[in-house]
Amino acid sequence: MSIRIGIYGYGNLGRGVEAAIRQNNDTELVAVFSRRNPETVKISTEGVPVVSADSVEDYKDKIDVMIICGGSATDLPVQTPKLAKLFNVIDSFDTHANIPTHFANVDVAAKEGGNVGVISVGWDPGMFSLNRLYANCILTDGVDYTFWGKGVSQGHSDAIRRIEGVADARQYTVPVQEALDAVRNGENPELTTRQKHTRVCYVVAKEGADKAAIEEQIVKMPNYFSDYDTTVNFITADEMARDHSGLPHGGLVIRSGKTGLNGEHNHIIEYSLKLDSNPEFTACVLVAYARAAYRFSQEGVSGCKTVFDVPPAYLSALSHEEIISHLL
Amino acid sequence: MSIRIGIYGYGNLGRGVEAAIRQNNDTELVAVFSRRNPETVKISTEGVPVVSADSVEDYKDKIDVMIICGGSATDLPVQTPKLAKLFNVIDSFDTHANIPTHFANVDVAAKEGGNVGVISVGWDPGMFSLNRLYANCILTDGVDYTFWGKGVSQGHSDAIRRIEGVADARQYTVPVQEALDAVRNGENPELTTRQKHTRVCYVVAKEGADKAAIEEQIVKMPNYFSDYDTTVNFITADEMARDHSGLPHGGLVIRSGKTGLNGEHNHIIEYSLKLDSNPEFTACVLVAYARAAYRFSQEGVSGCKTVFDVPPAYLSALSHEEIISHLL
Repeated sequence: MSIRIGIYGYGNLGRGVEAAIRQNNDTELVAVFSRRNPETVKISTEGVPVVSADSVEDYKDKIDVMIICGGSATDLPVQTPKLAKLFNVIDSFDTHANIPTHFANVDVAAKEGGNVGVISVGWDPGMFSLNRLYANCILTDGVDYTFWGKGVSQGHSDAIRRIEGVADARQYTVPVQEALDAVRNGENPELTTRQKHTRVCYVVAKEGADKAAIEEQIVKMPNYFSDYDTTVNFITADEMARDHSGLPHGGLVIRSGKTGLNGEHNHIIEYSLKLDSNPEFTACVLVAYARAAYRFSQEGVSGCKTVFDVPPAYLSALSHEEIISHLL
Repeated sequence: MSIRIGIYGYGNLGRGVEAAIRQNNDTELVAVFSRRNPETVKISTEGVPVVSADSVEDYKDKIDVMIICGGSATDLPVQTPKLAKLFNVIDSFDTHANIPTHFANVDVAAKEGGNVGVISVGWDPGMFSLNRLYANCILTDGVDYTFWGKGVSQGHSDAIRRIEGVADARQYTVPVQEALDAVRNGENPELTTRQKHTRVCYVVAKEGADKAAIEEQIVKMPNYFSDYDTTVNFITADEMARDHSGLPHGGLVIRSGKTGLNGEHNHIIEYSLKLDSNPEFTACVLVAYARAAYRFSQEGVSGCKTVFDVPPAYLSALSHEEIISHLL
């Protein structure tokens, strides 16, 4: 019997979840829920209905885990607690500062519904968090570094697109190689924002736009660019479509720490991701944690969980015997 | 109140555990158990007794978790089940093929004693296993690679030392850079033993020994060297002491996998360790899992566990609120 999954929200992430379900034989897509008119939403899985988000309650007994694919700014703070009353849920809530509040809200709602809610699942928060935790527990005397990229930041790309005269834009966050090298060498450098990442922008200007003015507005933009070394490249719409249509991302979590009676030995733990598709990878993590939510639920557990609370074995479709024999 | 820890076996690993306990404020060393005459064993922690292994039963109610620091070949298969009847235990059993049997034996003994036994804790098995599992659960369509080194293989060093005319030897296992590059590029190469690792040996020959004969015996030694490209460097005893007295090690676990409706996107997950001291790092992992064993035990859980069964949060001395706020 498969784990019956619903997708709530059908953007890049929802499409990624749909694809990931096909790669996991013990999961099955039951329905996609959308706030748009369902007739206008075309999905890739034959025979699976697109249902209005307003009718989600009708699926209460037809879905084992709902994977919520909304945005963290305004969608998830409302959707996840609401849906956790009806379903086991997974989300990728990624506003780090608000995670404790979100956890508390989902915990109350999930317990009320007798369901499990796993929040902040993906790669950061998610796999990067796990690696920060494991590395901190092992090397208690150490320093953490997180680098992002090379990858597309959608928030920064959007910020450029709002500048007058810009037709399209793509912004890549890129770790600074010298900083990475120093960290990997165990030098434990103190790094400013500027020393850790650079920002590389590709911009399609509208006809007749003042490129110098656009470039100046970008590099001086507070919060987004002014604290970084930013490079602006003007390209054509064709070049944008040809070279920058993907959503690659990735990054590294490194902990450098000392052991020994006198801290005489240094150790570097490094976890890195190179992702051709940020949303599809995130979706794969969500589906693995959907399996864990289902297992918790089968055990009668309810309430909010994070990646820190899930025994790794719960993520696997394989039996305990198999993972001990083949992966330990 | 601290977690009261015993160390059973005081070699490199036992000394590493002793140092690691000092870096974890919620743990405390109660006693070191040795099969040697306790009077001949000098430890680094003042006021802590060295006790004969024969008297371990006297400590039944004085120790929360026993960290067993014996060898996998003959010590741990006997020691871990025996001690699991008396104590919560942790070991670093690393004979991969025999893990299922060891798990079954420890499970029976630990349940009989009402204790928890966490086996095969360290970095491989241990952190590498965890990374293989996580990566397999996320990228279900992919290929795994494990590389070891650059680091000292004690088994290979010992094999060289047994050759006639050899006074001392140190063998480094080194990943082949071209193989690593191909894996990181997502080429999913099929790699032979020779293509993955090289072996670099440093040998101190006895006076008048036939170096050419020693070198030939090394590079042709079956199982240990004949399947590898092996380099032999003859050095002086002084050079050995100066340049090769440490026990560095490390390695990489990489999974390369595809996502998307048509497998059109590639992803690379890489976990790597660069360790100045193999035994001290392993010891740090053991102490973190001792904390988890203690938590399980406080919950009334008994039986055998592996790193796959432990929720990551159980490894941390911090509260759940703290790890959610600072590490997620």
